[in-house]
Amino acid sequence: MSLNPIWPQAALDAVAQRDACIPEDLRLPASFLAKYPPGSDVTSAAAESGLMTDKELQITNPSNDATSILAAIKNKTVTSLEVMTAFMKRAAIGHQLLCCLAQIFFEEGLVRARELDEYYEKTGELIGPLHGLPISIKEHMNVKGKNATGGFSGDLGKLVATENGHLIQILWNAGAVFYCKTNQPQSLMHIETFSFWGQTLNPYNTKLTSGGSSGGCSALISFGGSPLSLGSDIGGSLRVPAASCGIYTLKPTTGRLPSESYPDVAPVAGNDAILPTGGPIARSSRDMELFFATVYSTQPWTEDPRLTPLPWYYHTPKWTGSGGKIRLGVMWHDGVVYPQPPIRRALKALVDALRKTDAFEISDYEPKMHADLVSTAHRLYFTDGAACVRRRAAGEPLLHLTEWVTTLPEVKDHTTHEHWALHLDRDKLRKMYADHWNSQNVDAVLCPAGPGPAQALQTSKYWGYTSAWNFVDYPAAVFPTGLSADPTLDPKDEKREPWSKYDAHSIACYEPETFKNAPLSLQIVSRRNVDEAALMVLKEVEKVLPLKN
Amino acid sequence: MSLNPIWPQAALDAVAQRDACIPEDLRLPASFLAKYPPGSDVTSAAAESGLMTDKELQITNPSNDATSILAAIKNKTVTSLEVMTAFMKRAAIGHQLLCCLAQIFFEEGLVRARELDEYYEKTGELIGPLHGLPISIKEHMNVKGKNATGGFSGDLGKLVATENGHLIQILWNAGAVFYCKTNQPQSLMHIETFSFWGQTLNPYNTKLTSGGSSGGCSALISFGGSPLSLGSDIGGSLRVPAASCGIYTLKPTTGRLPSESYPDVAPVAGNDAILPTGGPIARSSRDMELFFATVYSTQPWTEDPRLTPLPWYYHTPKWTGSGGKIRLGVMWHDGVVYPQPPIRRALKALVDALRKTDAFEISDYEPKMHADLVSTAHRLYFTDGAACVRRRAAGEPLLHLTEWVTTLPEVKDHTTHEHWALHLDRDKLRKMYADHWNSQNVDAVLCPAGPGPAQALQTSKYWGYTSAWNFVDYPAAVFPTGLSADPTLDPKDEKREPWSKYDAHSIACYEPETFKNAPLSLQIVSRRNVDEAALMVLKEVEKVLPLKN
Repeated sequence: MSLNPIWPQAALDAVAQRDACIPEDLRLPASFLAKYPPGSDVTSAAAESGLMTDKELQITNPSNDATSILAAIKNKTVTSLEVMTAFMKRAAIGHQLLCCLAQIFFEEGLVRARELDEYYEKTGELIGPLHGLPISIKEHMNVKGKNATGGFSGDLGKLVATENGHLIQILWNAGAVFYCKTNQPQSLMHIETFSFWGQTLNPYNTKLTSGGSSGGCSALISFGGSPLSLGSDIGGSLRVPAASCGIYTLKPTTGRLPSESYPDVAPVAGNDAILPTGGPIARSSRDMELFFATVYSTQPWTEDPRLTPLPWYYHTPKWTGSGGKIRLGVMWHDGVVYPQPPIRRALKALVDALRKTDAFEISDYEPKMHADLVSTAHRLYFTDGAACVRRRAAGEPLLHLTEWVTTLPEVKDHTTHEHWALHLDRDKLRKMYADHWNSQNVDAVLCPAGPGPAQALQTSKYWGYTSAWNFVDYPAAVFPTGLSADPTLDPKDEKREPWSKYDAHSIACYEPETFKNAPLSLQIVSRRNVDEAALMVLKEVEKVLPLKN
Repeated sequence: MSLNPIWPQAALDAVAQRDACIPEDLRLPASFLAKYPPGSDVTSAAAESGLMTDKELQITNPSNDATSILAAIKNKTVTSLEVMTAFMKRAAIGHQLLCCLAQIFFEEGLVRARELDEYYEKTGELIGPLHGLPISIKEHMNVKGKNATGGFSGDLGKLVATENGHLIQILWNAGAVFYCKTNQPQSLMHIETFSFWGQTLNPYNTKLTSGGSSGGCSALISFGGSPLSLGSDIGGSLRVPAASCGIYTLKPTTGRLPSESYPDVAPVAGNDAILPTGGPIARSSRDMELFFATVYSTQPWTEDPRLTPLPWYYHTPKWTGSGGKIRLGVMWHDGVVYPQPPIRRALKALVDALRKTDAFEISDYEPKMHADLVSTAHRLYFTDGAACVRRRAAGEPLLHLTEWVTTLPEVKDHTTHEHWALHLDRDKLRKMYADHWNSQNVDAVLCPAGPGPAQALQTSKYWGYTSAWNFVDYPAAVFPTGLSADPTLDPKDEKREPWSKYDAHSIACYEPETFKNAPLSLQIVSRRNVDEAALMVLKEVEKVLPLKN
């Protein structure tokens, strides 16, 4: 276990090779980097670098979402090449400050962008709904010819994808441009992002994590280095990073998006006691709409027999409140960890704002069984006692959070009959939870996306606000409220009895100054397989956003 | 292992107790039973018994389907009580000839029927779409207050259901009348039906099996003792019995019908490497429509989080042939076992008849990978090396087919990592098969439902024509062609090299005289989760049925 591990030479070589892919003219001088000591807000660094034109800054500005960029390409306000060039620059700058990239192949992106421009010029047609959109991809996913790893340096060179994964190919066919893979943690099973590729930092405060495991994606997007990213989630790995960096995601129900498991990169490949899902990390809710609509328009279930054949908006959810209002349950806490002060403030502010609208019937949603949901999820992640992780990590030190997550009391190897008993426990608990959800009479639940905002590096241990929804397999969207942590507005609580060991850890970790400037994000959850409902509620909620500190 | 096992006293007591539930006035004298030596066709025995009125014989006649019966109750041509009384009589007669019942509770059925009549009389309303329909239920399913067993006498008294299973309750709420549970094999894992309750025989030829594992259901329905039955299928357990007895079933895709696993009765409960599904055994295709439409109208997925939220006919399949014709692939054999002569004759006769219609574009469907599908299914059934079966069977002898299925070379215990590898193998093979299906460019496949018609008792060993479709989880309907095995029409083949050990067994088992009068049934398979397509194709195929020997 190590906070500052000594990596094997192969890892150091790979890092050096990656960083050599940053074009010379985009390298930041040491004097510039020195302007951003730990704890800095680096979100303006691209503008301050002097390396980007105004147009490039405008194209890549996080407020300019993928939908806008695609419209601009279509209108010929910009070319695909201009877009790709701008994102290349901003990604290069962001990476040097945040360590968000695992693999860099900007040249391929530029070639693809040129080809798309030529195609458009020649035919007058766009190649597809994502024509010219640079998309960044989490490292474990299969992009033809590229390394995939499970966050272990020992995987380097061993898992080079011979084909694009199904979802990747759909995006490619729709016109996407690939130019980098993003960092992820060792083993994929942290809610931070630290691997042999380095430790990814939060653009709003570099003493904080960008979240994980899709934390390379989230840091890159919120810095402006990518308009859309493809990540994955089995315990919060899309939502924690999106929440930490103040951007958007929707973790779908499993089986709605193609998974990328041929060949299988995750250390627990084949463990289907609990399933992961891919998903977008995005700049806006309408970009997520675009992502899902694009994927589902290909009817991916005809190719992948594991998928549920549900078209996007296979039915439009009907709200059950009087006069068609959305019945929104507010889960103020999960009964296991009382949220840190900034999150409580954000949730209350949003609920106050929503109460002033005509769109919602708001009620309190009772938190129930969450300790069990979270504990059972941990039982399901490593049903081999995490031997898979130790085997795959051979040759590099186990990081602190890897060691922690693989030695939780719930982690043990199982006999066949113990596996079967575990499945029965899981299914019974899921049924009990469905009964509970039904008893609450809500269309969706609004709740925290974590016990706090982005945490100090290597301290994030409570996954429960996200992993509970993986356990029951409910779709969940994360969005920024517009608020951010503020030491003045978010002082420490009076001393209180912790609700759990996780709560004690959360209390101990909360120092108002530490969290300064961290975006405050929340989560909307809907019923299993009704992913569209989470997105529709989000779009209604957004009408009162952004809130202001 | 035993062909004629000596059962423990508890089993003998249970059997005696069951048979004591047959009303005195419905007991068949020994002289009557002696009229039906082994090999008899007993389908006329109800009429010959003198125990039933003409009206009762008409009500229960297998050509009078559930839809007709329900219409008659609605029109007040008959009462629910008359219907229940008629089925009670015919079930009692059938059981004495075929040993198809596991548990008898006729009195409860009569009470329920009276209540339904009173309700209808008083309110003028039917309680639901199944108002007054007697439904028989396979023994392992949970009916409140009744024993469930996994086909082991040791389970007696231990698994008394405290609630109706979800699916059972839906049928009850729709107005069904429950009056018996039907026999199933020891361990549930034969495609015949022999347990401590006895060995179920085929009404068309009592030297043959009724099929299994839902063979109590199929014998009872084809004898006329039930208009509709609820069974289950993980390797053919709905389809083999329906095919063997010349009636109907549709094995749905898993996750479309509530499963009945709280508490879990099957010996492999919790093994979700391959999943079972419930389903109807019925007298007509429109009865199956009624069954599924009734169940889905309750949106069962809102209560059971394991279910796929697909309403019945969530979309109407579009046929891909020219002019909207059905592209029907004919799989003449599976490449592992060449069908016995009667089945080849039936398939050819049906294809010839279909070619004369305008509804189909018929092509040959290439059998591919079936040996792997079947072998991998066997690997998935008992991933504990079948220790579960030996443990549950303690106290009673293992039957021949239990011993056989649990000692196949594919059956072994697994470490956690071996389980994971097995899941990956499974998923890759499923994906390869989906690619193959897609390459064949068909809307549905017509194929045998087994290597032959109903087999001689305790000889049924090749599950492949059905279990392949469980493995890939494609829905499959079985239906009678109207033909039956005939020693003159179906002579033995010339000697040939067997394709596999299963084929050698099938060749060795085929004696034309043995199979005399066995119904010849076939199977229609459609794409995963498009269960409606199998039924729609069946309804089109039926237009040329019944064929005549």
